Amino acid sequence: MPRSIFFATALATLAQCFSMNTAHSDEGMWLFNNPPRKILKERYDFEPTDQWLEHVQQSAVRFNSGGSGSFVSGDGLVMTNHHVGADALQKLSTAEHDLIAEGFHAKTRDKEFKCVDLELNVLMEIDDVTKEVNAAVKPEMPAAEAQKARRAVMNDIEKASLDKTGLRSDVVTLYQGGQYHLYRYKKYTDVRLVFAPEKAIAFFGGDPDNFEYPRYDLDVCFFRVYENDKPAKIKHFLTWSEAGAKDNELVFVAGHPGRTDRLNTVDHLEFFRDKTFPSQLNTLRRREVTLKTFGDRSLENARRAQDDYFGITNSRKARLGGLAGLQDPSIMNVKREDEAKLLKAASSNPKLKDAKSAVDEVEAAVNQWREMYFEFGLLEGGSGFNAQHFHIARTLLRLAEETGKPNADRLREYRESNLESLKQELFSEAPVYDDLEIVKLSDSLSQLTELLGAEHPAVVAVLDGKSPRERAAILIQGTKVADVATRKSLAEGGLKGIEDSNDAMLRLVRMLDPQARKLRKQYEEKVEEPLRQAYAKIAQARFVMSEGDVYPDATFTLRLAFGQVKGFKEQGKEVPPWTTIGGAYEHAAAHRNIDPFQLPESWIKSKDKLNLQTPFNFVSTADIIGGNSGSPVINRDAELVGIIFDGNIQSLVLDFVYTDEQGRAVSVHSAGIMEALRKVYKADEVADELQASRKRSAGRASRATR
Amino acid sequence: MPRSIFFATALATLAQCFSMNTAHSDEGMWLFNNPPRKILKERYDFEPTDQWLEHVQQSAVRFNSGGSGSFVSGDGLVMTNHHVGADALQKLSTAEHDLIAEGFHAKTRDKEFKCVDLELNVLMEIDDVTKEVNAAVKPEMPAAEAQKARRAVMNDIEKASLDKTGLRSDVVTLYQGGQYHLYRYKKYTDVRLVFAPEKAIAFFGGDPDNFEYPRYDLDVCFFRVYENDKPAKIKHFLTWSEAGAKDNELVFVAGHPGRTDRLNTVDHLEFFRDKTFPSQLNTLRRREVTLKTFGDRSLENARRAQDDYFGITNSRKARLGGLAGLQDPSIMNVKREDEAKLLKAASSNPKLKDAKSAVDEVEAAVNQWREMYFEFGLLEGGSGFNAQHFHIARTLLRLAEETGKPNADRLREYRESNLESLKQELFSEAPVYDDLEIVKLSDSLSQLTELLGAEHPAVVAVLDGKSPRERAAILIQGTKVADVATRKSLAEGGLKGIEDSNDAMLRLVRMLDPQARKLRKQYEEKVEEPLRQAYAKIAQARFVMSEGDVYPDATFTLRLAFGQVKGFKEQGKEVPPWTTIGGAYEHAAAHRNIDPFQLPESWIKSKDKLNLQTPFNFVSTADIIGGNSGSPVINRDAELVGIIFDGNIQSLVLDFVYTDEQGRAVSVHSAGIMEALRKVYKADEVADELQASRKRSAGRASRATR
Repeated sequence: MPRSIFFATALATLAQCFSMNTAHSDEGMWLFNNPPRKILKERYDFEPTDQWLEHVQQSAVRFNSGGSGSFVSGDGLVMTNHHVGADALQKLSTAEHDLIAEGFHAKTRDKEFKCVDLELNVLMEIDDVTKEVNAAVKPEMPAAEAQKARRAVMNDIEKASLDKTGLRSDVVTLYQGGQYHLYRYKKYTDVRLVFAPEKAIAFFGGDPDNFEYPRYDLDVCFFRVYENDKPAKIKHFLTWSEAGAKDNELVFVAGHPGRTDRLNTVDHLEFFRDKTFPSQLNTLRRREVTLKTFGDRSLENARRAQDDYFGITNSRKARLGGLAGLQDPSIMNVKREDEAKLLKAASSNPKLKDAKSAVDEVEAAVNQWREMYFEFGLLEGGSGFNAQHFHIARTLLRLAEETGKPNADRLREYRESNLESLKQELFSEAPVYDDLEIVKLSDSLSQLTELLGAEHPAVVAVLDGKSPRERAAILIQGTKVADVATRKSLAEGGLKGIEDSNDAMLRLVRMLDPQARKLRKQYEEKVEEPLRQAYAKIAQARFVMSEGDVYPDATFTLRLAFGQVKGFKEQGKEVPPWTTIGGAYEHAAAHRNIDPFQLPESWIKSKDKLNLQTPFNFVSTADIIGGNSGSPVINRDAELVGIIFDGNIQSLVLDFVYTDEQGRAVSVHSAGIMEALRKVYKADEVADELQASRKRSAGRASRATR
Repeated sequence: MPRSIFFATALATLAQCFSMNTAHSDEGMWLFNNPPRKILKERYDFEPTDQWLEHVQQSAVRFNSGGSGSFVSGDGLVMTNHHVGADALQKLSTAEHDLIAEGFHAKTRDKEFKCVDLELNVLMEIDDVTKEVNAAVKPEMPAAEAQKARRAVMNDIEKASLDKTGLRSDVVTLYQGGQYHLYRYKKYTDVRLVFAPEKAIAFFGGDPDNFEYPRYDLDVCFFRVYENDKPAKIKHFLTWSEAGAKDNELVFVAGHPGRTDRLNTVDHLEFFRDKTFPSQLNTLRRREVTLKTFGDRSLENARRAQDDYFGITNSRKARLGGLAGLQDPSIMNVKREDEAKLLKAASSNPKLKDAKSAVDEVEAAVNQWREMYFEFGLLEGGSGFNAQHFHIARTLLRLAEETGKPNADRLREYRESNLESLKQELFSEAPVYDDLEIVKLSDSLSQLTELLGAEHPAVVAVLDGKSPRERAAILIQGTKVADVATRKSLAEGGLKGIEDSNDAMLRLVRMLDPQARKLRKQYEEKVEEPLRQAYAKIAQARFVMSEGDVYPDATFTLRLAFGQVKGFKEQGKEVPPWTTIGGAYEHAAAHRNIDPFQLPESWIKSKDKLNLQTPFNFVSTADIIGGNSGSPVINRDAELVGIIFDGNIQSLVLDFVYTDEQGRAVSVHSAGIMEALRKVYKADEVADELQASRKRSAGRASRATR
């Protein structure tokens, strides 16, 4: 039966099973300082100790390029997904060596390959600073003033924390404004590539299999963090589990879910359904087609565009799944009913009464947002100028301007405590390909013209009487900001040098910036701040209603999810939770070994040596979303049993509502990883290091009680 | 240098060279009953005789599936492009035999493969019926009444002509309403496939090379028309030229350009730039991505989707080129200046005075169009229901309804004179793949929801409480209209049977049709009719200004273009007009023989036998556009020297304005075709039949004077 039919049926079935009620499901992306103790105790008779939580928290690693990972040895070895590592692999690749396609393996530590701009973060401490933040914002302040005051206090808290501890310090907005927590991270910026398999097995099945199950992917990649040019000594790292997870076993996922919108009001979700998702999909599809046509011209073009291309097709498929959920009346009805419940409760319980006006305030803010949606996204969000040169030039200009102001008054990304990370990215030695950037810029200038209209003053000024294609070529050929030395000297030279520069891209961003900043200010005052205030009230009401058992929407900060290893039913048939290494060969044969179903040479040669029964991928009910890629999957003993790399297609609505009827998190199994490392890649030194962790990990000491 | 840079530069250069003045260029898609005699005499000292014109006119063939062709033997052999024939090839293909990929060769006539629904037309006679049509429409009539009266008189003229001559009779609207000509066609519906090369050489270079030059494509396909189960005897067919066209030689193109918009006012073009082109591109890109993801799942999926996929990527590239022109201020300025000239002339010359108000009337009609653009396109145009089942079901419903009315009152496509062609298509035995159609329908229902909004009454009614994906599956699984016997019995059963049917798709179209018809009526009265009246005045003014030397915009009817075989300059370098067969092998090697730059096995094996110096493709300055694909290219002696298959990227603005600075028509050379037929394919019987034409063609008797 065609897949699309099954999907429709699947979606219908699962719509009946959604629930906002967490008590009887494996729902939740929980805070480490507010873990779901009650639920875990009731459902699984498991009580994590404080040591267990601390150990897991500090074993988890955030990839600031967008993903999760974990420490897997005391010598700083980090495991993540191949598709999370791909950003670094792409930046280390050349026309001669395509590390994404070919893979990489440093047989000895001196061969480990230093990444150009990767920053890893480990969450060390959490402080609740809600009171401090809220104290700075008086109820009587108008939105503009409140926004300014809130920004000031956040910038200052972070600066003070950084000065005091030396740790990266971020105030994180939780519950869309209901709480503020200060997160202190240990930061690693000397990160080296240790091992990556070939893309053909890491992303086996390609776009067709992405977000599908069963799967057969070795989506892993190993890095090592260094300090003072030596492998960093790590206290908390995860013990390798040889057996891996078993059927129905309770597992945990410690990772960094990027974003969910489960607290959103119905108006807000309708805005997504009618405006943001369709618009973003139009943008994604045009970029996908643009990169595909660029890549089809030659193998080198394809190599240059591949990481961007993967990211875009991946987002396109995820967004399509999300939109399918938003366009499904049965799903929206779940949200409507839930909101009706909230409003009903608010009308009778004085403690909740603010929730009602808050729902209306969200609607008003969303209406403001709708008005400025394209202008803001194109001019301030920068989607009308989709070229690295533009973003570099604007960062140079704003860095010079903002660092001339007191810390409290700066745009958030230029706050004192963030400057080191910002510069790590700004001065990256990653290659920039002019030909690719011209194609991207040209398409986005054309989109700018379409969406704002050819007569819009900003469009007229940007195009300067030229066609988008011609103007894109002129801008890229007329700028030197792709050169890192030039970038550094401009940054050091300060505002005067940038203002005097004749560089074509710098001139463009100078010309645009007053309007872009105005839009930013408008957005912050009329959309962001009102939404924050309104959601703080809604979150408060939900807190009261759930007696505190509620987790905040995802914010690309560390969360703990849990669930069971468990298959699911599809069209009446059981999909088992496991696949095996042997299944990969069968899957390739069923697709006549044609790309993206073509196994790499190394796997074809090693088939005889492998135990084909070894578990390869598995699914669980853990509550994950994009950003969780690379998260460790652990058992009660905090042993590493797998690594998250995907969700199935039924999980794509998890952005808005949790379901474990069919929605599943997809992981690579620890046994499959070990089998491949030893037998396909002869990466015994990596395998040995992973297995050595059994003896040394601090985790073994902090085993939780059952 | 990256291609995009060159393109930008190229576009800039050519913008300076546009002109609406035809006197000194090879511009024009001329009517056979108003050929550019003066220009041809002045520029080329060539005077076509009436016999020459009649011979060429009746040698040209229109493919109603969308393309051009020509008779190349007295036994009904027809040559067209592979990509024009692909629609028929796809419909004859199965999972076991993919005729598009593998090609086809009937060694003997009894092996020729009957197409399922192809109709070919040959233009036999033209009558100017402008007076009759205009006489029926009184100046004092309101637009609605005028539209009705005009439709009635056109339907009646056609019916009378059909009854009298037995020929397919179409009243063609020329100069956007300035003239009406009655075209009588001989119609062939028994069309059989004779020869097709493999797609790998027919579309060598694929999407990357599409609309590019130099090229190396054997984009040809041969069919034969039959009458009474025997090869039709053809009086007018083209003589094969062994030598083919030479440098700077004058050549003619007799074909069916689909659509141009050169007469359009600036307001109208701005509407295209701001609304229709961006919207159509969004639709094309989403369909491209949808079909690609469907096709990537398996080879059989790819085969099922391939012809649709080609059509969509081809349109996407063409539309992108068109939009690039519309977004180029220097090109729009040419149109603005030209309009200013017209208005200036109108203000001083009483004969032209109506042109001024007409320009305003166009603006008003375009404003009406903008208002209803999405609703009309989605609900009446059917783009919200992108599945064959929908279009079949609606045709069945409307056929039953319309044929119950007097001919004069029917929607144009159901007029008596068109019913035979309509049924040829409606009862086609072409395969319909439910899985593919569900995916297409699902995506278009999602687009319908996005563009009209989830709360739009039509959307609510269409989705019936389901998600787009679920509803698409229900509709396709609940209809029997894909079955041809069912279709026929429904058509024979009349309106009652269709109204009583419980078929899911028939129920949907019944429910939608009142609103769709209302939109159609609104469009015809508020957009189509006012535009027609306004453009009739503008055309009249242009006639006066040019003293009759003006051709109408393209309408997928037969036109004569002319030009020279001529290279062009790109970034200061000469691009020669020719490529050779040997160049194909070099081009493949330069792209490491990877698809779409992989030559088929037959070509790799035959390399040694081929004369690698044989001309393969060439360019000329002839004025062509989409629809011209497959048009014969002939010399002064009406000998066939090549076949049009593409325009270069600089020609993509020809929709709005002609340029021969760099814009070129791209053809396959007759010598290249002959070389491949004999040496690669051993298709000697086809080659012999082509060469035999030298002795027998009626064309040799009607040679024009120099």
